[in-house]
Amino acid sequence: KINGDRLWDSLMDMAKIGPGVRGGNNRQTVTDEDGEGRHLFRKWCEEAGMSMGVDQMGNMFMRHEGTDPDALPVYVGSHLDTQPTGGKYDGVLGVLAGLEIVRSLRDMNIKTKRPIVVTNWTNEEGTRFAPAMLSSGVFAGMHTQDWAYDREDAEGKKFGAELERIGWKGEEKVGDRKMHAFFELHIEQGPILEAEGKDIGVVTHGQGLSWTQVTVTGKESHTGSTPMPMRKNAGLGMARILELVDEIAWSHKPDAVGAAGHIDVYPNSRNVIPGKAVFTVDFRSPNLSVIQDMEKRLAEGAKKICEEMGLDVKLEKVGGFDPVEFDKDCVKAVRDAAERLGYSHRDIISGAGHDACWINRTAPTAMVMCPCVDGLSHNEDEEISREWAAAGADVLFHAVVETAEI
Amino acid sequence: KINGDRLWDSLMDMAKIGPGVRGGNNRQTVTDEDGEGRHLFRKWCEEAGMSMGVDQMGNMFMRHEGTDPDALPVYVGSHLDTQPTGGKYDGVLGVLAGLEIVRSLRDMNIKTKRPIVVTNWTNEEGTRFAPAMLSSGVFAGMHTQDWAYDREDAEGKKFGAELERIGWKGEEKVGDRKMHAFFELHIEQGPILEAEGKDIGVVTHGQGLSWTQVTVTGKESHTGSTPMPMRKNAGLGMARILELVDEIAWSHKPDAVGAAGHIDVYPNSRNVIPGKAVFTVDFRSPNLSVIQDMEKRLAEGAKKICEEMGLDVKLEKVGGFDPVEFDKDCVKAVRDAAERLGYSHRDIISGAGHDACWINRTAPTAMVMCPCVDGLSHNEDEEISREWAAAGADVLFHAVVETAEI
Ligand SMILES: NC(=O)NCCC(=O)O
Ligand SMILES: NC(=O)NCCC(=O)O
Repeated sequence: KINGDRLWDSLMDMAKIGPGVRGGNNRQTVTDEDGEGRHLFRKWCEEAGMSMGVDQMGNMFMRHEGTDPDALPVYVGSHLDTQPTGGKYDGVLGVLAGLEIVRSLRDMNIKTKRPIVVTNWTNEEGTRFAPAMLSSGVFAGMHTQDWAYDREDAEGKKFGAELERIGWKGEEKVGDRKMHAFFELHIEQGPILEAEGKDIGVVTHGQGLSWTQVTVTGKESHTGSTPMPMRKNAGLGMARILELVDEIAWSHKPDAVGAAGHIDVYPNSRNVIPGKAVFTVDFRSPNLSVIQDMEKRLAEGAKKICEEMGLDVKLEKVGGFDPVEFDKDCVKAVRDAAERLGYSHRDIISGAGHDACWINRTAPTAMVMCPCVDGLSHNEDEEISREWAAAGADVLFHAVVETAEI
Repeated sequence: KINGDRLWDSLMDMAKIGPGVRGGNNRQTVTDEDGEGRHLFRKWCEEAGMSMGVDQMGNMFMRHEGTDPDALPVYVGSHLDTQPTGGKYDGVLGVLAGLEIVRSLRDMNIKTKRPIVVTNWTNEEGTRFAPAMLSSGVFAGMHTQDWAYDREDAEGKKFGAELERIGWKGEEKVGDRKMHAFFELHIEQGPILEAEGKDIGVVTHGQGLSWTQVTVTGKESHTGSTPMPMRKNAGLGMARILELVDEIAWSHKPDAVGAAGHIDVYPNSRNVIPGKAVFTVDFRSPNLSVIQDMEKRLAEGAKKICEEMGLDVKLEKVGGFDPVEFDKDCVKAVRDAAERLGYSHRDIISGAGHDACWINRTAPTAMVMCPCVDGLSHNEDEEISREWAAAGADVLFHAVVETAEI
């Protein structure tokens, strides 16, 4: 078993960088705080005898040597970036559990045949730059690097320029590395494991996602002196589309979810009827045809709503991935590890997207999940117990070490 | 008649300060651009022989002497601040037409008995700091100065500190001035005069306003992994309240309008269910009981919607004024002037709020309106013709000079 206290202490130390306002974290991707977090992770890894590689997307690869340096390594990791009002564990647990595996191997003086490479993927959250899992996506060949560099945040800053600014644009060509397998530990971010009292989720599938950015255009005008029949209220059009999004998601119960987290109206002045509303609809389902149906109904419904109101509407897909089935052998390694260690477990579908979803396209991949309190994530109040973290890391340890061969 | 070309040239010169992105203006209150606009206006007034007074709210009073310096002056003016994406005429026309009156009197070598004081009221728009008509409101005793200084913009900057920063906090005690009368020329900002082909609106009343800031609180959580039944989506609660606002306003057709121009959700991240939504509902009617009914139905309806969704809701009145009836003699002076000059005219109710609405509480007050293209205002495309501007200024000129006595 790994050292749960050491893992926990590292989690708490990392959480000091980019603290939130309510006990969580604001360490958004390619900010100064992200840079600081990377330096701390690098320092820890180098203290554990690991060597660093960084690719041109800022993905960090911390290598622990195997007895056969020519064998394909086993990769393990997640992401250190957070939401603007995020928790201390989302992503971070998976990276630091990777480090803890190496620390424990050294403590126990165990050597694996294959090298183990602990990875921090850049911009998993997608909150500052859409889409999510941007850099694992480039690694897996889903996006070009130029396209990724061109992604803009709300202030118009570009991802590539920001990565360079914080000093973490590496030399290495993205996606050149070959992996024997990839494992990712992550908190569930949903309520199932806690409700059923299970220690471990064996992730067999990941649900798919579709992000559609909707732009409704009306006409800015005075809230007082514009007669009701003359209004082209883009904010009201948006409200009706938000209601439709909810309706569509419920209609596929329990196989789908839908909401909009990002909403901006312009010029956002109390006495100006919004002339423009921009928002992003997030639809998910483990079922591809359900996602396609939801996209279609959104497009048709939004068009109808806006036509009736004299508004223009434009829909643009700004992110998405198809439902994922993880590698059977890797999944079995996770399940066997949980079983061997005596942890209660169940198979589970990931509700969130993860770097593992993209890496699964280029290498055998699986995920381990541990519960989180009230299923709450993307919230500063996100919480897990020390025991849950340790159990997840134990299972990850066994799955990785077995795959890396002793 | 006044010099319509000179008035137009001054309008165009002022519009160069704080230009918008589409031909309009962004010269929001107590910004550097507002300061620059004030300096230009001051320079023009001093070139026309006027002397300046500035009060502690930054209200500017440019005095043109009368033959009886002890007689109570006639005040005339409006505001130089604009919306973030505002037009070139909203407010500015009324201030520069006041200046044009003095310039014309000097050209014609006419002296009035009463002094004429051309006024620029600070923060009429209320877009950066709610409420609208803040400084005429303090002048009229509707708000305390300390309360006004404490108003915050979206970045948490305070009105008082910003006024001081741009160097326009004067020495004069606010509201100490006594007025014989106050006149304000303004573009209609609605479609009636243009549609009926009238040159002039004789403003008999102003409709009342109510601004309610609504805060809906739910629970930030993951858009992917939070099951639909566990969601507390503050953005969806907001959408339903926006629909209700529209419904309530239509139910009082044609005596009411309603919309929300200001909308913010938090943390505004694509994959976070909004934990909080803050928006401002703007209800207006010429009928006080209608405003009260709309406020009541909003409060009850919002509570009901949020209760059903497991959301909290808080409503706070952040601005408002009762419907206004302007002074009969001043209104008559406006109507007589239009008649005498041969301009077509009709009585009209102002749909927007104006500094005149507050000043009417401390001095006999009336307003002149001129048409604007398509009734469009609070939009960079706001447009008026040179002739409309000149006609409005002519009527203002006659009403003011008659009231100031020759
Ligand atoms: N795990 C996680 O929160 N990833 C962010 C991408 C997503 O929205 O699913
Ligand atoms: N005239 C004008 O647009 N004033 C701003 C205050 C209001 O919203 O009515």
